Amino acid sequence: MAPIAGVRIGTATAGYKPWTRSDVALVELAPGTTVAGVLTRSKCPSPEVDWCRAALARGQARALMVNAGNSNAFTGSAGRDASAAQVAAVAAIIGCTPHDVFVASTGVIGVPLPVTKATAGVAAAHAALGQASFADATAAIGTTDTFAKGATAAAIVGGVRVTIHGIVKGSGMIAPDMATMLGFIFTDAAVAAPLLQAMLSAATASSFNAITVDSDTSTSDTVLAFATGAAGNVPLVTVGSPGADAFAAALADVCAKLAKLVVRDGEGATKFITVEVAGAEDDRAAKVIALSIANSPLVKTAIAGGDANWGRVVMAVGKAGEAADRDKLDIRFGATTVAASGAVVADYDEAPVARHLGGDDIEIGIDLHLGPGRATVWTCDLTHGYISINADYRS
Amino acid sequence: MAPIAGVRIGTATAGYKPWTRSDVALVELAPGTTVAGVLTRSKCPSPEVDWCRAALARGQARALMVNAGNSNAFTGSAGRDASAAQVAAVAAIIGCTPHDVFVASTGVIGVPLPVTKATAGVAAAHAALGQASFADATAAIGTTDTFAKGATAAAIVGGVRVTIHGIVKGSGMIAPDMATMLGFIFTDAAVAAPLLQAMLSAATASSFNAITVDSDTSTSDTVLAFATGAAGNVPLVTVGSPGADAFAAALADVCAKLAKLVVRDGEGATKFITVEVAGAEDDRAAKVIALSIANSPLVKTAIAGGDANWGRVVMAVGKAGEAADRDKLDIRFGATTVAASGAVVADYDEAPVARHLGGDDIEIGIDLHLGPGRATVWTCDLTHGYISINADYRS
Repeated sequence: MAPIAGVRIGTATAGYKPWTRSDVALVELAPGTTVAGVLTRSKCPSPEVDWCRAALARGQARALMVNAGNSNAFTGSAGRDASAAQVAAVAAIIGCTPHDVFVASTGVIGVPLPVTKATAGVAAAHAALGQASFADATAAIGTTDTFAKGATAAAIVGGVRVTIHGIVKGSGMIAPDMATMLGFIFTDAAVAAPLLQAMLSAATASSFNAITVDSDTSTSDTVLAFATGAAGNVPLVTVGSPGADAFAAALADVCAKLAKLVVRDGEGATKFITVEVAGAEDDRAAKVIALSIANSPLVKTAIAGGDANWGRVVMAVGKAGEAADRDKLDIRFGATTVAASGAVVADYDEAPVARHLGGDDIEIGIDLHLGPGRATVWTCDLTHGYISINADYRS
Repeated sequence: MAPIAGVRIGTATAGYKPWTRSDVALVELAPGTTVAGVLTRSKCPSPEVDWCRAALARGQARALMVNAGNSNAFTGSAGRDASAAQVAAVAAIIGCTPHDVFVASTGVIGVPLPVTKATAGVAAAHAALGQASFADATAAIGTTDTFAKGATAAAIVGGVRVTIHGIVKGSGMIAPDMATMLGFIFTDAAVAAPLLQAMLSAATASSFNAITVDSDTSTSDTVLAFATGAAGNVPLVTVGSPGADAFAAALADVCAKLAKLVVRDGEGATKFITVEVAGAEDDRAAKVIALSIANSPLVKTAIAGGDANWGRVVMAVGKAGEAADRDKLDIRFGATTVAASGAVVADYDEAPVARHLGGDDIEIGIDLHLGPGRATVWTCDLTHGYISINADYRS
C-alpha cells in the first residue's frame, strides 16, 4: 500500500504492556478531510466510542489516534478523563479543534488508559509522522491478530484515479450487529461526509456486519473512513455524482476484503467458512438464518472435525426463528447437495464432500425455497485453539 | 424413585445403534391420565414433536414411547411414516386410540427411524412392562449423557400425599427459547389437563427455559407431564383448587432440579455457573442479559480458565441490546463485588475471588440499578472437552 496523499502516519511505543513493539499510531489528515464512521451498538461502549459518535456529527477530521493493549472500556471517569487528555494532546500538537480528532483503543477491558503513557505516546508518534507506512500502522494497532490485515482498491472518479486503503485489527470478540473491531479506511478521493457515511454504512452491512468469529461483540468496535480529497477529483456529493458508483464499489470491495481477513485470523481458526442462504422470505430473514448457522458451536465444531453434519445445519436453521419449511430445505457442502426437500439425498457421493471438508475454504449452502431472500455470512471453525487462547488470555 | 401408581415402565433394546444397552422405553399410563407438554420452537421439528403437539390438544394419555440413538428429525416422509407406524403399534398393543400415545426420539438427525426395529422395540418393551424402574427408563433414554438424571418431590393436595417424579436426558444442543431436551414428569395426582399445562408452562419458564449449554436448540426438545390421578385426591381443576399451590410448587421444584442436572452434565463442562441479574428494566430484559452472559463463549472460556474476567461480562451485558448504564453497573463473582458503578473496585480482595473460581459452582452476579427486573440462568463453562465431543460426534 503506497502512501495516500493527505495522510501522514507516525507510530511509537507508549508501553501499554511490557513490550517493545509499537502500540500507538497517529495519523495526520490534510485540512478538508471528511470522515464517516460506524460504531459498536454495545450498550457499554468505551469513552473513545462515545467521543467518535459525537465527533462524527461534524463530518470533518484532522487526526486519528489509536492505542493497542488497553481498550479503556468500562473504566469510569478515570478512563473518560484519560481519553479526553489524549484527544487534547493530539489537538494541540496537530493544531486543530479537539472535535476534529478521532480516537480508538483496543485491548484489555477495565483498566483506565494510563494518561502519562497516552500523552507521551502522542508526542512520540507525532515526532515520527511521515516515517511510518500503512503496514507499520497495521502492526501497531494489532493485539491477538496473528497477521497484519490491509486491503486496497482504486476507482476512476470523474476522470481522476483515486485510491482507497483500509487497515483492520481483530480476531476474537467478533460478531455482527455493529461495526466490528477497529477498521480504518483512507482515500485521497474528495467525498462529502454525508455521502461517505451513506456509502460506508451500506458497505458495512455486507462486510463487517456479515462476519462472526464467536458471536461476541466488542465494547470498542469502530470503523472510520477518511477522505482527504487530495486526489483532486470533483467532490462526490450525491449518489448521482459522476464516479460515485465506482467509488462506492471500490469502498465496498475494501470493506469486504478486510472483513474476510478478520475471519481468516479468527482465534483458533483452521477453516474459513462461507455460509450462503437463498430462498428465504426476504434478505433480513436470510441473514438471521445465515448467522444462526455461522454462530452455532455445533456447526462450527463439526466443520473443525471435517464432518458433513448437515443435521446440525438443520438444527441451526430451525432455531433461527425465521420462516422455514423442513420439507423444502436443500443443503449443500461445496458443490454437493447432501439434503434436498427435507431429507438426505439417498445416494449422494461422499468423496467430493470429504475432499471439500478436508480443505481450508468451506462453503455451506442452504436453499429454503420460500422467497427471494439471500444473504452471505463469513465465519470460521471452532477449535481447541479458541479455548486455549481464551481460557488463558488475561493472565 | 419408588413406583408411581398408574405408571408401568418397560425398557428394551431396539438396536438403533450397534450396542446392547436399552434404547427404548415404553410407559403405560392408567386410564384417565391427563397430560401437558412444552415442545421445541424449532422451525424444523421432528415428526415426533409434530405428533405430540397435535395430541396434546386432547389432554389425555395412555402411553409414552421413547427412542434413543435416532432422533428421526429431518427424515422426510420416511421418518413420518416410521413414527406413525410406531404410534400405531403402541396403540394396538396398549389398546387405545393413537391420539393417546405420545412419542419422543433423540439421537442422530437425518436418519429415518428404522421401522422394523421401532415396532419390534414396542413389542419387546411391552413384554417387559412393570419390570423397569424410573432409573432404568432414565438410562434407556440417554445419549451423550454421562449420568442418569431424575428428580422427585411430594405435595399434600387436599389432605392426600401426591408424588412427582421427573426424568430427563440432555447435555448438548441445549439452549432456551423452548422446552429443552427430553424430559418426562409423572405424578399420581389428579390434575385437569388445562391446569397441568398452565403449571408446566410456568415451571418451564424458570427451569428448562432458563438453562443453556451451547446456545444450540434441538429439533426434538420435548417435556411432557403425565398425571395418573391414582393418588385419589380431589382433582385439581383451577389454580384456586385446595392444594394447587403446593402441587405447582412441587412441580416447579422437580423441573428446576432436572434443568440444573442437564447443565451439570453439559458437554465438556467442568463448572456449573449461576448467572443472577438484578436491577434490569423488567424481568424479560433481565433474562435477555443473563442469557447473553451465559451464552458468551468468552465468558464461558474465562470461567473454564478460572479467570475473574469481568471485562467480558461487561461485554456480554453491552451486546445484549437491553437498557444498561455502563456507569451504574455492579459485577460480582461469588460474594465479592469486583466492579461497581462502572469501574473496577480498586482494592477488592482477589483471594476469595480466586478461591470461588477454583471451585465447581460459580456465581456471576450483575446489578444494573435501573429497575426491578430479575432473572437467574444456569449454564456451564466451555472447555476443550466440548470441542473434543462435538468435533468428532457423527463419525
